[in-house]
Amino acid sequence: MNENKIVFKVIGHIQSPHIDPKQTPIQPVFCKGIKGKAIIEKQYIDGLNDLEGFSHIYLFYSFHESNKTNLILKPYLEDKLHGVFATRAPHRPNKLGMSLVRLIKVEGNILFIGDVDILNNTPLLDIKPFIKRFDTRQNARSGWQEDVTDDEASLRGKRDY
Amino acid sequence: MNENKIVFKVIGHIQSPHIDPKQTPIQPVFCKGIKGKAIIEKQYIDGLNDLEGFSHIYLFYSFHESNKTNLILKPYLEDKLHGVFATRAPHRPNKLGMSLVRLIKVEGNILFIGDVDILNNTPLLDIKPFIKRFDTRQNARSGWQEDVTDDEASLRGKRDY
Repeated sequence: MNENKIVFKVIGHIQSPHIDPKQTPIQPVFCKGIKGKAIIEKQYIDGLNDLEGFSHIYLFYSFHESNKTNLILKPYLEDKLHGVFATRAPHRPNKLGMSLVRLIKVEGNILFIGDVDILNNTPLLDIKPFIKRFDTRQNARSGWQEDVTDDEASLRGKRDY
Repeated sequence: MNENKIVFKVIGHIQSPHIDPKQTPIQPVFCKGIKGKAIIEKQYIDGLNDLEGFSHIYLFYSFHESNKTNLILKPYLEDKLHGVFATRAPHRPNKLGMSLVRLIKVEGNILFIGDVDILNNTPLLDIKPFIKRFDTRQNARSGWQEDVTDDEASLRGKRDY
């Protein structure tokens, strides 16, 4: 394998009510209650043991509808240009998406998930548990995002859903 | 491209004091103050604009020293078996690592980072800002991790560093 490339396998797919990228909420916090499923390839089913103990999980996936890279772009929440690495926008050098969703239950190879902001049929790459002691940062400074009010963020973040 | 594979480009590398996987702390919370750098390929430098406004960033990388997959394993913090997706262990179907590190400053294509738990020479795939309103979950339930005390976690999580 070329050492400048990393190849990942698709381990499953997302099922969600979001079929139009333009109407898909931009983050789980903007679509509370929206449900979907992660269908995991059966060969990986043993890896799901004990996942159900976690109320929230990170899903990592490919932004499979993105076919361009914008190093400088206007994010959904603000009409100002920012570097893509200072945003969560999909049009990145690597189309790696991350969503922190609610885990409702696990049945066999199916994860029932809530607060789903992921397009239907999205290829899944990894699942990691949200662990409070690892993943919480008090007093974090959030850059340009702090110039966007919560109301404005909620209004724009929901998009047309 | 085979639709069951996703190919990512290496966008940079991590420089850190960790040269032995067995002595590398398992999470940023267990190595506060340990400094490193992310050296970004110069073609992506525009993507770093405004990143410095964020105090914490997620780094996504390849666990390049992992050459096996264990669907069931004992994590570093506990001598009990769990499914790999209920852990943050490196030996996953896709060797995708995530670390939430401190961003100290940005100079050109170099990110100066703190709380670094990443092996030296690790290939970097993506950078995303930690955004309080997106990434915080109150009252999250952390599964088997809640059976590990903070003291035990700290002791085992630092490893031999």
